[in-house]
Amino acid sequence: MNRIPVAILGATGTVGQVLAVRLAEHPWFVPVALVGGSRSAGHRYGDIVRWRQAGPVPPSLAQLVVQDMAPRDVPLAFSALSRDVAAGVEPVLARAGVVTISNASAHRMDNDVPLVIPEVNADHLALMHQQAGRWPGIIATNPNCVTAALALALAPLHRAFGLERVVITTLQAASGAGYPGVPSLDLLGNVLPFIEGEEEKISRELNRLLGTLSSGGVEPAGIRVGVHATRVPTVDGHVMTVSAGFQRRVTATEAGEALRRWRPPAEARRLPSTPIEPLALHDQSDRPQPRLDLSLGNGMTVSVGRIRECPVLDVRLVVLGHNLVRGAAGAAIQLGELAALQHPELAALLDVRHRWTDG
Amino acid sequence: MNRIPVAILGATGTVGQVLAVRLAEHPWFVPVALVGGSRSAGHRYGDIVRWRQAGPVPPSLAQLVVQDMAPRDVPLAFSALSRDVAAGVEPVLARAGVVTISNASAHRMDNDVPLVIPEVNADHLALMHQQAGRWPGIIATNPNCVTAALALALAPLHRAFGLERVVITTLQAASGAGYPGVPSLDLLGNVLPFIEGEEEKISRELNRLLGTLSSGGVEPAGIRVGVHATRVPTVDGHVMTVSAGFQRRVTATEAGEALRRWRPPAEARRLPSTPIEPLALHDQSDRPQPRLDLSLGNGMTVSVGRIRECPVLDVRLVVLGHNLVRGAAGAAIQLGELAALQHPELAALLDVRHRWTDG
Amino acid sequence: MNRIPVAILGATGTVGQVLAVRLAEHPWFVPVALVGGSRSAGHRYGDIVRWRQAGPVPPSLAQLVVQDMAPRDVPLAFSALSRDVAAGVEPVLARAGVVTISNASAHRMDNDVPLVIPEVNADHLALMHQQAGRWPGIIATNPNCVTAALALALAPLHRAFGLERVVITTLQAASGAGYPGVPSLDLLGNVLPFIEGEEEKISRELNRLLGTLSSGGVEPAGIRVGVHATRVPTVDGHVMTVSAGFQRRVTATEAGEALRRWRPPAEARRLPSTPIEPLALHDQSDRPQPRLDLSLGNGMTVSVGRIRECPVLDVRLVVLGHNLVRGAAGAAIQLGELAALQHPELAALLDVRHRWTDG
Amino acid sequence: MNRIPVAILGATGTVGQVLAVRLAEHPWFVPVALVGGSRSAGHRYGDIVRWRQAGPVPPSLAQLVVQDMAPRDVPLAFSALSRDVAAGVEPVLARAGVVTISNASAHRMDNDVPLVIPEVNADHLALMHQQAGRWPGIIATNPNCVTAALALALAPLHRAFGLERVVITTLQAASGAGYPGVPSLDLLGNVLPFIEGEEEKISRELNRLLGTLSSGGVEPAGIRVGVHATRVPTVDGHVMTVSAGFQRRVTATEAGEALRRWRPPAEARRLPSTPIEPLALHDQSDRPQPRLDLSLGNGMTVSVGRIRECPVLDVRLVVLGHNLVRGAAGAAIQLGELAALQHPELAALLDVRHRWTDG
Repeated sequence: MNRIPVAILGATGTVGQVLAVRLAEHPWFVPVALVGGSRSAGHRYGDIVRWRQAGPVPPSLAQLVVQDMAPRDVPLAFSALSRDVAAGVEPVLARAGVVTISNASAHRMDNDVPLVIPEVNADHLALMHQQAGRWPGIIATNPNCVTAALALALAPLHRAFGLERVVITTLQAASGAGYPGVPSLDLLGNVLPFIEGEEEKISRELNRLLGTLSSGGVEPAGIRVGVHATRVPTVDGHVMTVSAGFQRRVTATEAGEALRRWRPPAEARRLPSTPIEPLALHDQSDRPQPRLDLSLGNGMTVSVGRIRECPVLDVRLVVLGHNLVRGAAGAAIQLGELAALQHPELAALLDVRHRWTDG
Repeated sequence: MNRIPVAILGATGTVGQVLAVRLAEHPWFVPVALVGGSRSAGHRYGDIVRWRQAGPVPPSLAQLVVQDMAPRDVPLAFSALSRDVAAGVEPVLARAGVVTISNASAHRMDNDVPLVIPEVNADHLALMHQQAGRWPGIIATNPNCVTAALALALAPLHRAFGLERVVITTLQAASGAGYPGVPSLDLLGNVLPFIEGEEEKISRELNRLLGTLSSGGVEPAGIRVGVHATRVPTVDGHVMTVSAGFQRRVTATEAGEALRRWRPPAEARRLPSTPIEPLALHDQSDRPQPRLDLSLGNGMTVSVGRIRECPVLDVRLVVLGHNLVRGAAGAAIQLGELAALQHPELAALLDVRHRWTDG
Repeated sequence: MNRIPVAILGATGTVGQVLAVRLAEHPWFVPVALVGGSRSAGHRYGDIVRWRQAGPVPPSLAQLVVQDMAPRDVPLAFSALSRDVAAGVEPVLARAGVVTISNASAHRMDNDVPLVIPEVNADHLALMHQQAGRWPGIIATNPNCVTAALALALAPLHRAFGLERVVITTLQAASGAGYPGVPSLDLLGNVLPFIEGEEEKISRELNRLLGTLSSGGVEPAGIRVGVHATRVPTVDGHVMTVSAGFQRRVTATEAGEALRRWRPPAEARRLPSTPIEPLALHDQSDRPQPRLDLSLGNGMTVSVGRIRECPVLDVRLVVLGHNLVRGAAGAAIQLGELAALQHPELAALLDVRHRWTDG
Repeated sequence: MNRIPVAILGATGTVGQVLAVRLAEHPWFVPVALVGGSRSAGHRYGDIVRWRQAGPVPPSLAQLVVQDMAPRDVPLAFSALSRDVAAGVEPVLARAGVVTISNASAHRMDNDVPLVIPEVNADHLALMHQQAGRWPGIIATNPNCVTAALALALAPLHRAFGLERVVITTLQAASGAGYPGVPSLDLLGNVLPFIEGEEEKISRELNRLLGTLSSGGVEPAGIRVGVHATRVPTVDGHVMTVSAGFQRRVTATEAGEALRRWRPPAEARRLPSTPIEPLALHDQSDRPQPRLDLSLGNGMTVSVGRIRECPVLDVRLVVLGHNLVRGAAGAAIQLGELAALQHPELAALLDVRHRWTDG
C-alpha cells in the first residue's frame, strides 16, 4: 500500500505534536520530515520535543532528526507554524511545488487560497488552481479553532434557512493559546474577557467558509457576526453559545430537524478523518460539556446542544469542538486527505483503491 | 447612636454568612437573631456554622444561639432562605409586622412586592405600601445574582436610549450555586452550559427592574432578553457578555458616555452600602476579570469593560459583578438601608441624623 | 469462546461506571447483571445512569435493566458498593456461592479475606479457601486507591531491601471521593489537608499487602507508615511523595536498579489487565504528572519518578497511579482475572486455553 | 511624624507589587523611588505596571516615574529582584551605604549576611555589622517563601525539644513562581512534582534560620531535612506537610502545647508588621486551607493544624503560609522594620517614639 510522504512544520509545538500523533498512524500519509525552530534543529525529535500528549512520542517519529529548513522534496506538508513564520515559509514551499496544508492564519484570507472544512465547503478547494500563476504548489488552509466547530454547526442551518445574523460568545480553553500560552496566574479561577484578534477572525472566516465560490474567488456569505471571545480555565475544548437569526422566522424544532437531517457530502465521507457523525446532537439540557464530550469521533465530532428559541434572534444553541483536533491538527489532516484525492499529483501517489472507496 | 435590631434567616448558608460578616459591622443595623435549620438550632452560631469566609466568625455573632423559628419581634429581617422555605416563612414574618428583605426568588414577581436595586429603581419600593391589605409588615426583594449586576450596568443605557433587545451569555462562578452546590467533578476544568431556571429568571427580573411603577404595580420594560447561562470554574464573580440593541442606533462612544455620565440618584447615594462608584468602567481590553476586579467598592461596584460596537445589535460590552455581594448579601443590606429610610417605623428607630445625611 | 457472566454492584457510581466500560469489552467476562440503588432499579442502565465517562454508555449494557438485589446466580460479581452497603451485601453473595471481588473497604482487613494486587501478592489469594467455613462463595478485595499504586511501587524495594519506615504525602484527585464527592467550593484553587480515615487505611493495607501468608492468615509486614493525606484540585490521578527507610542503608541508584530489574510474577503476567509495564520509571525531573502520565498501560501502569536520596530516611521518590483504574475498577477486574484462573469453579467456566496462556 | 524614605527594586513584579501596596500605607516608611527593568524605566508606575493586585495601584505611587538605576541616596531599599540581577545590584547599593533588605536568594547564604525572621532569630541581624569591611551599607535577607512559614512553625518546637530530622512535602501555589511563571497548560488540573532548586534551598535556609549566632557567623542547626517540593493549582498560599523527629520522643500533645505557649520575642512584637498572633493553631481536622486561612494577620500569620503523632518520626503537622506576604513582601518589610530599630542611622531617622513603643 502506497502512503504519501509528508512533512510537519512546527512539529514541536502544541498543534504540531497532535499532528505528529495523528499522522504517525495515518492510513494515507507517512511523516518523513519534522521541521522545528533553530533550538530543536539537529536533535532527534524524541529528545528535543517537550512532549505534552498522553502516551509516548510515536516511535516512528522519535528517531527523526528535526530540520530547520522546510523540505522542498516532499509532495505534502502540514504547517502548524505561527502566523508570522508561516507568512514567510509557506510561499517558499508552494514555490517548490509542495502542497501545503496550513493551520496558520497567514494566508487564510488570500483571494486564491482555499479555506476549507470538507463537510462544509469542499468545493472551495478548487480555488487552489488559481494559485497556478503564483507557484507550482498550493497553499490550502483550515480555519481558526473556534470557526472550525462553529461553521460546521451552522452550515446545515445556513443551507436550510439562510443565516443572517449571529451573536456568539466563546468560552475557550487554555490549549487554544499554544504553549506556554496563558500564565496560570491569569487563568486559575478566572475568566479573561479578551483574546487578541479572535473576534474579527471568527467573523471573517465564518463568512468565507459559508460563502459562495465564484470565478473571482469566494463571495462572503454576508452574515453579520457579533462575537465575544473569552478564555476560561479549561484545558481543551472550546464552547460557544450561539444566538442565530435567519432570513425567515425559524423555530427550535425546525433548527433541530435541519441539524438532525444533515449528512456530510460524499467527498467528505470518504476521508479517513471524517467521523461517522460529524455533528452530535445532545438532548440532555446540561450537555455538551468539554469534560464529557470532547472525545466523540476521535475529537472530530462537533457537539450541539440546548437548541431552543431565542427571544431576540431565532434560535439559541450551544456548540462544543475540540480545538486541537477539529479546530487544528485534525482539521488540517482532513483537508490534506481531501487534497490527496483532488490534487492530481497527490492522487497519483495514493494507491488507486483509496480514491474510489467511501472511507 | 441607635441601631435597628435585625434577624438573619438562613444564617448558616453561603449568603447568610456574608450577611453575617457585613451586618456585624453595619452602622445602622445590629444582628440580634440568627435563624437556621433544625440541625443548627439550639447551638451557638460559632459552633455550628460551617464557616467558609476569610477571617473568623464575627465575635458578636459567634455567641448567639441559632433559632429555628423566625423571630417576630424584630422590626427588620434579612432572608437568605432557599426559595421553597422562603415561600412559607416570609409571609409569616410579614404577618407579624416584620419588614422582610429577601434574597430569595419566592416572592420577587408578586405584583405588590418590590424588586429593587436602589441605584436603579428606588421608586419601586413604594410598592410595599400595596401589601397593606395582606399584612402589617412588608416583603421587599433584591434580584437574582446575575440580574443585580446586569440591571445596574444596563439601566443607564436604557434610560438614555431605550433598550429593546439584549443577548447575554453568563459565565457564573461556583458560589452562585450555594454550598455544597456543584460537585467538583462537574466543574474542575469544565464548562456547564445550563443552570436550571436561570435564563427565564434573568429575563423576567430585568424587565421588572427596568419597568415603570404604575398604579397597578410595575409595568415590565418590554425588553426582549435572550440568555445563555453557563457555569465556569471560578469561585466568585459572575461575568456576562452583553450585546444590546436600542430604539435608535447607538454607537459605542455614546454608550460609553452614557455610562460614564451616569450618577446614582440621591436616595441611593445616602445609603452606607452604596459605593462611591457603583459602576466602574475599564479601559484595558482584557478587563474586567473576576480575579482582579471583584473587590472594587467592597464588592458592591459592578465593572463594565470592552464597550464596542456590535455587528448584529448596537453595542457589545462585558459586565462583572460579585455574586455574593452585589448579587446577594450586599444587595439585600443596601435595600434594607433604603427601607430603613423610607419605611416610617424603621426610620423612627434610626437616629434622626442618618435620615438627613448623604451617606 | 466461553466468557464468565458477571454482575456489577454499584454500577451507577463513579467506580461502577469504569467497571462497566472495562468489563463491556473484556475477553474473559461478560456483564449480565447491573445492580444499583432503589432509585435506579427497574430502569434501563442507559436511561438512569448519570454517565460521566468519555464516550457513550457501552451499548451492550445500556439496555440492561438495573436491579436492586444482588443476583445470586452469577458465578462472579464485582462490587463498587460503599463501605456500609458492602458490609451487608457482600456476605449475602458469598453465602449464595458467588465469588465477590470487592473494591469496598468493608472486608479488606477480615482475617480470611484476601487483599491482593496480582503483581505484588498473588499468593495471598489462597486465603480465600479459609472462608469455606463461613460460606460456599468467597470475598476477595483490592486495596484502597492510594495503596494500590503505592504498594506496587514499594514492593520491589521491600523485597530487595526490607522496608522499615515510610513517610508519605498524598495529593489525591477529586474522583477519589466519588460523586458528588467534594463540593467545588471546597476544591477550586484550594488544598484540603484531611481525608477521613485515609491515613490509617493506607498504613494498614500496605502492611497487609506486603505481609506474609501464614497458616493463620497474613502476618503484617511491620512497616512503620506515616501518612499525610491531602486532596488537590485535579480530576483523576493520585500523586504520592515517598521517603523510605530500609533495613540497611540504600542508595538512590540501588533503589532505581531494584525497580528497573523488577518483573511481575508469571501468574500476574498472564492476566489480560496486567500491563506490559506495571511500573514505569521516569527520568525527567518533572515527571510523573497526572495530566501526562495517567493513561500509560491503559491506566494500569504506576509511574515512579524523582528517585533520589533522602537526608532523613534512605530514598525519596514520587509515585502516580490512576485512582479509578489501578486504584479501583482496573484493580478489581485484574483480581477477578486472577480468581478466574485460581478458583476451581470459575476456571472451569473459562475456556481452557486461557488458563495456560501467558496473557 | 518622620517616615524613612525607601526604594522598591523590582517594583513591577509579583512581589514588587505587594511591596508597593503594603509600603504605600506603612507607618514608618514612605516609598520615594521605584526601580524597574529598562522596558519600564521612564514611564509612570501606574501606566507601565501590569497590575495584578485586588484594588488599584496606590495613588501615591502611580505617579512616580520608574527608574532603571537603583537610587543610592535613599537610606533603605527593599529588593524584589531576581536572583541574578540581585547578585549584581545589591552590592552596589551596599557600597553606596544603603540598608538593603532583600527577598532574593543571591546573598542569603553569605557568611556575613543576616537571614532573619524577626520572631525566630532577630539576634542574627547583628551579623550585619560584619559587613563593615565590605561596604558602608548592609544587605539583610528574608527567607524563601516556603522556609519563611516553615521556620516560624518549627522554631518553637526546635527551641523546646531540639529538632533533629524533618520530612516535608510542599504543595506550592502558582504565585510562588512569579509572573508569567508556570503556563496554565502545565498547572490546570495537574500536579508538578518538581521545583528547580527549591528542596536544597529549604534545607539550607531552615538550618541557617534555626542556627546559632557565633563569632564567625551562623552555626547551622544540623537538622536533617528531606523535602519534596510540588506545585499545585492554587493561586496563593503554600501548604506543607511536616513529619518531625526530635532529640527525645515528643508527643503530639507536647508539641501542641509548645506551639500554643510560644510568644514572639519583644523585639518582634514592637514591629508594625508582626501580627498579634504570628502562629494560629487550628483544631478542626480539615484546616488550614489556603482558601480560608490565608488572610489571617493580614497575611503574616502562619497557620498550623493537624498536630498528631507520626509512626515514623515523632509528630506530624500541616503548615500554611501566604507565600507573597509572610513568604516575601511582608517578610521583607517586617525585617526592614527590625533594621529600622536596630541600625543606628535608620533609627535616628525614625521618630524616637517608635523606638520605645511596643508596636
